[in-house]
Amino acid sequence: MHEQLFDPAAILPGWARKFAEEKKGAVFNGDERMKLAIDLSRMNIRQGGGPFGAAVFQSESGKLVSIGVNLVVQSNCSHAHAEMVAIAIAQHALSTYTLYREAETGYELATSCEPCAMCFGAIIWSGVKKVVCGATTSDAVKAGFDEGPKPVLWARELEQRGIAVETGLMRDEAQIVLEEYTRQGGFVYNAR
Amino acid sequence: MHEQLFDPAAILPGWARKFAEEKKGAVFNGDERMKLAIDLSRMNIRQGGGPFGAAVFQSESGKLVSIGVNLVVQSNCSHAHAEMVAIAIAQHALSTYTLYREAETGYELATSCEPCAMCFGAIIWSGVKKVVCGATTSDAVKAGFDEGPKPVLWARELEQRGIAVETGLMRDEAQIVLEEYTRQGGFVYNAR
Repeated sequence: MHEQLFDPAAILPGWARKFAEEKKGAVFNGDERMKLAIDLSRMNIRQGGGPFGAAVFQSESGKLVSIGVNLVVQSNCSHAHAEMVAIAIAQHALSTYTLYREAETGYELATSCEPCAMCFGAIIWSGVKKVVCGATTSDAVKAGFDEGPKPVLWARELEQRGIAVETGLMRDEAQIVLEEYTRQGGFVYNAR
Repeated sequence: MHEQLFDPAAILPGWARKFAEEKKGAVFNGDERMKLAIDLSRMNIRQGGGPFGAAVFQSESGKLVSIGVNLVVQSNCSHAHAEMVAIAIAQHALSTYTLYREAETGYELATSCEPCAMCFGAIIWSGVKKVVCGATTSDAVKAGFDEGPKPVLWARELEQRGIAVETGLMRDEAQIVLEEYTRQGGFVYNAR
């Protein structure tokens, strides 16, 4: 372990750091987990961010471990998708490079939208045992976002690696944020 | 732009920060770019890191923009692959979320080994116009690493998106580092 200058939570803007501090240790069950991810996506667009939110929970207890929002444009970092941010902060908080726990239900990622090609790979390396998604890839594409060349059967790929996938949870609510973003003329960044 | 607490270079251990400082503005041409990526992979294993190195260059001038090494275990971050680190530092240094430049040859990523599934997606979002790779996916697998479910024709996917790919450059030298890592009993982390 080298000197710990690295703190992935430093990427969060002030409002999100404050929010994370307030919700520290709070318990979220059932749809509350997805609701939090969608709430984060909504808060983020109102603060000038991209329309995506995510959070990591301890699966069994429902305890919130970390939050993430899309910060690509503001942080000058194309990696800074909501899922990536939430995973990095969770691993740092738990002092581990993998959230995988052999004998436990472990950790779960809730994301307001199905993952892109990068996040799909990152989810595999993260060690989470479950991913729940709100809006679908087609919803993201409809809003102008490119999800990249992920496998058509991406959910099956994750499941084959022991990661449970549920998608379309509270899809209407998640879509409303994507639509609000489009309606307000939100900047749809892409690499080119 | 929120308060810039976020500095991706903070993930680099002291030796790598020192190295980056010393090489700042240096010019690398032809095979020197791949040689640097491989040198970084070798330095990293001797400092207790994973056997992967990468660097971003301004394609035309050959000017070094950033370096990256695999820091997954030391930094408690499963995203911290060499390519991810190099891309994030380059974007931060250039104050942009995309390295794409319309009318120029732009930027190039040299990596000591072909990208995994996550880095494959991240390369697309990064805006680089070219990727050069040393060791191949099969070399990484032989050393015990899982490259994940990336498309079989991953290089073609990148090329279809305007990203040139060259692979197998100085492959023997890159493989020697993977083998040295295996021989020294290097820890092959995986999510589980």
